[in-house]
Amino acid sequence: MSDEALVTRLRDLLGKSAVLTDTDVTASYARDMMPLAPSGQPLAVVLPANVEEVQAVVKACAEAGVPIVPRGAGSGLSGAANAIDGCVVLTLTKLDEIVEIDPGNRLAVVQPGVVNLDFRNAVEKHGLFYPPDPSSYDWCTIGGNLSTNAGGLCCVKYGVTTDSVLGLEVVLADGSLLKTGRRTVKGVAGYDLARLFVGSEGTLGVITQATVQLKPLPQAPATLVAGFTTTEAAGEAVARIVREGLVPSLLEIMDASSIKASETYLKTDLGAGSDCQALLLGQSDAGGEVARRELAAIEQICTDCGADLAYTTEDLEEGRMLLQARRVVLTALETYGQWLTDDVCVPRTRIAELIRGCEKISSEVGLRIAVVGHAGDGNMHPTIVYQPDDEDEFARAQRAFDAILEVGLSLGGTVTGEHGVGKIKREWLAREIGPVGLRVHRQIKAALDPENLFNPGSMFSMT
Amino acid sequence: MSDEALVTRLRDLLGKSAVLTDTDVTASYARDMMPLAPSGQPLAVVLPANVEEVQAVVKACAEAGVPIVPRGAGSGLSGAANAIDGCVVLTLTKLDEIVEIDPGNRLAVVQPGVVNLDFRNAVEKHGLFYPPDPSSYDWCTIGGNLSTNAGGLCCVKYGVTTDSVLGLEVVLADGSLLKTGRRTVKGVAGYDLARLFVGSEGTLGVITQATVQLKPLPQAPATLVAGFTTTEAAGEAVARIVREGLVPSLLEIMDASSIKASETYLKTDLGAGSDCQALLLGQSDAGGEVARRELAAIEQICTDCGADLAYTTEDLEEGRMLLQARRVVLTALETYGQWLTDDVCVPRTRIAELIRGCEKISSEVGLRIAVVGHAGDGNMHPTIVYQPDDEDEFARAQRAFDAILEVGLSLGGTVTGEHGVGKIKREWLAREIGPVGLRVHRQIKAALDPENLFNPGSMFSMT
Repeated sequence: MSDEALVTRLRDLLGKSAVLTDTDVTASYARDMMPLAPSGQPLAVVLPANVEEVQAVVKACAEAGVPIVPRGAGSGLSGAANAIDGCVVLTLTKLDEIVEIDPGNRLAVVQPGVVNLDFRNAVEKHGLFYPPDPSSYDWCTIGGNLSTNAGGLCCVKYGVTTDSVLGLEVVLADGSLLKTGRRTVKGVAGYDLARLFVGSEGTLGVITQATVQLKPLPQAPATLVAGFTTTEAAGEAVARIVREGLVPSLLEIMDASSIKASETYLKTDLGAGSDCQALLLGQSDAGGEVARRELAAIEQICTDCGADLAYTTEDLEEGRMLLQARRVVLTALETYGQWLTDDVCVPRTRIAELIRGCEKISSEVGLRIAVVGHAGDGNMHPTIVYQPDDEDEFARAQRAFDAILEVGLSLGGTVTGEHGVGKIKREWLAREIGPVGLRVHRQIKAALDPENLFNPGSMFSMT
Repeated sequence: MSDEALVTRLRDLLGKSAVLTDTDVTASYARDMMPLAPSGQPLAVVLPANVEEVQAVVKACAEAGVPIVPRGAGSGLSGAANAIDGCVVLTLTKLDEIVEIDPGNRLAVVQPGVVNLDFRNAVEKHGLFYPPDPSSYDWCTIGGNLSTNAGGLCCVKYGVTTDSVLGLEVVLADGSLLKTGRRTVKGVAGYDLARLFVGSEGTLGVITQATVQLKPLPQAPATLVAGFTTTEAAGEAVARIVREGLVPSLLEIMDASSIKASETYLKTDLGAGSDCQALLLGQSDAGGEVARRELAAIEQICTDCGADLAYTTEDLEEGRMLLQARRVVLTALETYGQWLTDDVCVPRTRIAELIRGCEKISSEVGLRIAVVGHAGDGNMHPTIVYQPDDEDEFARAQRAFDAILEVGLSLGGTVTGEHGVGKIKREWLAREIGPVGLRVHRQIKAALDPENLFNPGSMFSMT
């Protein structure tokens, strides 16, 4: 089938308005938020409205031998959803129905195009809580979250996306529909296929529905902030918090560079003093006396580790203001240039070493690197600032990006904690998982997608 | 290679004492605890002492074309570890080292032959907690737990085995060693292979090491017991406990038949009265005031649902005594004959219907069926009692076993919540997952084990 014939076929299947080919329009579907990742020009962008249309698209593309790149909102940070030349971008945003909320069994059934925040709000009306909260939660979709196994700020207590998944419906490479998983809390009938598709970044199939378990709605959070004059003291505090068995609902770290950017942007003083090298922000959503006890224990640990600022508040608005300092870091960095955020996860005892490593890299490449991260789970986001129109700076930013991964791996970490491999960390994935791991990946990909139809060349290459 | 040559080769590789061929001896390695499952006569039982020996055994068997059945302690309840004629039973019990306990990162590295209880005790010395606690926890092994994705009584709060797994080492069908997963809390570098191997019942590879995350040691539990004059009232209480967002650390149900067996065996009165049709046993390990509040809320729900007994104690010994009534049920049933325990998981709102269904089946087949179960997660274990030397009773027991699964499926449940598919539920698995699901299972199995070396015919057949 010629490209032209495929487009005609897709228009017949989905209707004209659901098949975009104008390159000015398709360009806005060709990339996610990762500046380092390459992207190509798609043959077409299609917006199917239901699972049958997804199946029809997959069958048509399979027949034509045209690769498919599945895509949600495009908030990703690894280029996993970036188009390749001549592909069909399969956008799932029109599958946006919350099919069912079952409070008696604390579960919901949801389509991939539902925006994370809309889903959170919908289940909250039933007193329920969907934990995964990536930073883009107000515009990213559940389908993208599933495909990348997205994390967020809640992971220290509530885990990542895969920990909420009970079952999936997936359109396979031959267009057939796999229904896998269950509606029960437990179940061991067969291989855990649902968790194989979660985090597979669109390389194995197209997720068209998910059954997820929900948690009871937590209490309003109490918030703690602690400031340290050395990075090591903050790192030691995190390690002690873990070792003493405390599980806050949020535990974030900001390095000196992040603090400064945030203070400048917010035109405020975070109260940490000018010699503050690291801030910890913690929350407890356990409520009342328990929350007070949890945060008091964390505050004590911070003080014991030498924090010269340690402050706890139960006032919601004040807590929100404190967290704001963390949430604005990326925006604040835009004052200095374009940001490029990396994603490594290290053992929780090694956080200070990672930050020190980033300081060293920063002075080596001569670029600002601000480290923010989910300290409670060791998932750090060192963020490099560069001038996009300066080729040399861009090259140095890329060098810094790789050097950070090098440090992460050397500390016993992984090259991606939550953003994924996509089109920017293929070589790093190969290095982390080794030749046997890569072979098993290829075997599974070849078994489920023998023609390499789905997102070819993303995550790993088949040769 | 002839069978004889393979045995000679295995003896050369492992030493004579680690290769058993005396059929009187190998018979004790040929079966697990499931009476319904077929078993064959192995060519040999091998007990490798380290990963290199496991790799050597796999290579030798692959070369000889002799299938391998991996095995832990043999506490399984699905025949998954049962020998087939002419196979090599690969027993992992000599890989019994706790390689590392890392309290700073709350993780441990453990070999498959370590007994669950020994591991729990070892980590407890560091103030840490390994949640999975199948009933056989005092003799089952971590390797068996991983292979079956074992559950237990803690799952309502702490999940199943796979929820603790960070990484695995697995010997593949060509003898190579796959190291997959990570030592960090989060990580999305590649497919979630670790969770594909967990619960794959020895059909994809031999797990030789696991990295697991640990929890802070919980507080000493407070215990609640509630008695109901109708099954429906108890079922309604469970549904309300879930709906109101309560998460006890244990929530078990016993039906009238279980209560009676237990009371007779323990020569005691559980205080529930002669018209008690269902008991709920709950625990909170949240400690102090929080535990008191949790159990008070559960007690209130039970009373609102019509419980005529509802009693809470913080006394550890008294709590242990109350739980004893649940723990002795299987032993108590042995007074009446041999037990055959089934394993279904239903949505938590459907528990009473499952119990009613079992009562109906019991009167249809004319056999005692006692239902005990993990009410908090809907995982029920209806247990059929029969005379093993009575062929007709055995046939009726088998009929009841299948009829229970039928009811479970009709309630939106799964045919196995935690025991696995093994050699007894292959047809039921095929029915639950459907033709597309079965095809994907076969594709993955063929990709990783093209010669069908590992546990062939278990879980599903390749044709």
